[in-house]
Amino acid sequence: MSGVDVIARLVAAAESRARDGLGRRLRTIANGDPTHVIVDGRRLLNFSSNDYLGLAGHPALVAALKQAAGEHGVGATAASLVCGHRRPHAELEEALADWTGRDRALLFSTGYAANVGVMQALLAAGDCCVQDRLNHASLIDGARLAGCALRRYPHADVEAARRQLALCEDGGAMLVSDGVFSMDGDIAPLAGLASCAAEMEATLMVDDAHGLGVLGAEGAGSVVEAGLDASQVPVLMATLGKALGTAGAFVAGDGDFITALAQFARSHVYSTAPPPALAAAALAAVSIARREQWRRERLAALVEHFRNGAQAMDLPLLPSRTPIQPLLLGGAERTVAVSTALERDGFLVVAIRPPTVPAGRARLRITLTAAHDFGDVDKLLRALAKAMRDNGGP
Amino acid sequence: MSGVDVIARLVAAAESRARDGLGRRLRTIANGDPTHVIVDGRRLLNFSSNDYLGLAGHPALVAALKQAAGEHGVGATAASLVCGHRRPHAELEEALADWTGRDRALLFSTGYAANVGVMQALLAAGDCCVQDRLNHASLIDGARLAGCALRRYPHADVEAARRQLALCEDGGAMLVSDGVFSMDGDIAPLAGLASCAAEMEATLMVDDAHGLGVLGAEGAGSVVEAGLDASQVPVLMATLGKALGTAGAFVAGDGDFITALAQFARSHVYSTAPPPALAAAALAAVSIARREQWRRERLAALVEHFRNGAQAMDLPLLPSRTPIQPLLLGGAERTVAVSTALERDGFLVVAIRPPTVPAGRARLRITLTAAHDFGDVDKLLRALAKAMRDNGGP
Repeated sequence: MSGVDVIARLVAAAESRARDGLGRRLRTIANGDPTHVIVDGRRLLNFSSNDYLGLAGHPALVAALKQAAGEHGVGATAASLVCGHRRPHAELEEALADWTGRDRALLFSTGYAANVGVMQALLAAGDCCVQDRLNHASLIDGARLAGCALRRYPHADVEAARRQLALCEDGGAMLVSDGVFSMDGDIAPLAGLASCAAEMEATLMVDDAHGLGVLGAEGAGSVVEAGLDASQVPVLMATLGKALGTAGAFVAGDGDFITALAQFARSHVYSTAPPPALAAAALAAVSIARREQWRRERLAALVEHFRNGAQAMDLPLLPSRTPIQPLLLGGAERTVAVSTALERDGFLVVAIRPPTVPAGRARLRITLTAAHDFGDVDKLLRALAKAMRDNGGP
Repeated sequence: MSGVDVIARLVAAAESRARDGLGRRLRTIANGDPTHVIVDGRRLLNFSSNDYLGLAGHPALVAALKQAAGEHGVGATAASLVCGHRRPHAELEEALADWTGRDRALLFSTGYAANVGVMQALLAAGDCCVQDRLNHASLIDGARLAGCALRRYPHADVEAARRQLALCEDGGAMLVSDGVFSMDGDIAPLAGLASCAAEMEATLMVDDAHGLGVLGAEGAGSVVEAGLDASQVPVLMATLGKALGTAGAFVAGDGDFITALAQFARSHVYSTAPPPALAAAALAAVSIARREQWRRERLAALVEHFRNGAQAMDLPLLPSRTPIQPLLLGGAERTVAVSTALERDGFLVVAIRPPTVPAGRARLRITLTAAHDFGDVDKLLRALAKAMRDNGGP
């Protein structure tokens, strides 16, 4: 008999968070186009999506989804190992492996599922997982679920990672980092991490959710850009819901590893396979993302344009060259005030606050997409100048 | 420095499982219709899908998916709390809440995500989670991830559940059960569990993945069939990838609870929202599932027809009245042999073996769908008679 009401306790925690000004609203987006959303009846220029290449609404993806839905229906009707693994899944896995230079890839329904699945399969009590302090929440949860020791090092500090690995006990050791950090936009020191992992006999895993499609030759991601191969980064994870404009995720690696992963990753074994039509849409996205280099070039030009303008205005940029261009405002209250002012002016720029980011490091997470044009960025810069001025200066 | 190669260790575990005859093949299904799949170029009558109502390929679902994809594109482009929560998600959440008699519902991308998300939000170290021994893997992982004490009771034993709850310490306590057990097909003793939870001041959670759409008035699920309401089962989870023929899952409950859950369930907060078009397809499925009672009636008639035939043949039926009708064969090797013989004869009936089920309790998991007809069941029964006779009798 406990007497503690777990639901009342959760509700109280949410109320406490709201009192601290950290409550988040679930707002319904009525509709949109590649660069706009409609919120509360108002059309806003959107700088908050992760649709970096502007593919989420691309006619080829929509056509692939429709055609495969006509052929395969909607749901996969079972887990992959039962009878849910359809031809589009197999084709997508092959395309992802080919793109990232790996033997094989295994699909998951979400990045969260991929990370907890692969980490639970690879790690257990007695093992050690060393992670960047700013890694995505799902990597932290993967280590927790695996039951291994979790050691976190200061952001992007390879020497600190090495010291943490040196403290690992006799079991297996993994070194895990985001490729591109989701809330900061900077790129991990991947070459350094790879040397460190090799020297310390740890297995390196990179979560390239925000790098795939955006960085490297043919958009193959941050690992390719860093000149690393599958022997140096044997566990590569990335998602399909960002630059690829669809949904889901995958882990890629050696054939034996992926075969074993398909048997042991519980989030894969015990989940219905994603809809085949969604895999078909992602396959179309992979083809476009590899081929249409102009999307990455345009994105890079937009990023440069934004950073030049923001620097001229002394806006608090972070050292990012990816489409994630946060402005570090610090306090949650001020960040929300600037976000609200921008929305009044016709822009959606969501405020990111603790616990998603550390206390005192609230920010506007501005994201650019190849669907934006230079005029969109100019408009944002003008609105930012005004919103910042009205809320305590840059 | 560890020297343990975590990938080599996982590969070795998979090889060991294969040597024990417990390896599972990822086979690609070329295509199908509501009752057939094409595997290795052969068209098989499918008794392994979870498409209980035969909705996965329903024209109304496909049409809803296509229309919403034309309107919203493919991916949601962001997490729900950022800008991924679109009108179809909101409409689906309202429809699910209405159907299940709850204030509100919150969508997740998979059942696995829903279960780990809600349990991690509700439970922590110092709390206690009491679970049926045959609960779904995601519920076990949810408790592990929450870091609470996990106590499991013998299958469907309410008195044992009560004893386990009595051993819980001072923190919060949850009692968690599948509504319909995924590998056995039987229904949990929900009324007894509800009394037990009330008496022991524990919060009852039911995972109705295999009950929603199939059981209860308008298919509202096992909880409604048991005559229980939201005060008795305050945490209701169910999935959209089975009877509803699409993909995803939800948690339903009181408004305050769901509002808080949207802020604290990490698998929700830190995942891209599911594709809006998928939500639109699921909304169409909810409407059909509520309205078309004939699908449940037909399914019940097929279940009865199958059980009568199987009983006449002394097949090792389990006590199930749901569309999940396992034949308990015991040994993994014999189960695979019968499954293989059935496949030679034109039927897909997947063998379920440890670790998905306990050692010595391997089975053929036969599932029926409203898309089957009596002739399909008769054919299966004849093939079963032959396959069993050729492999050691019933």
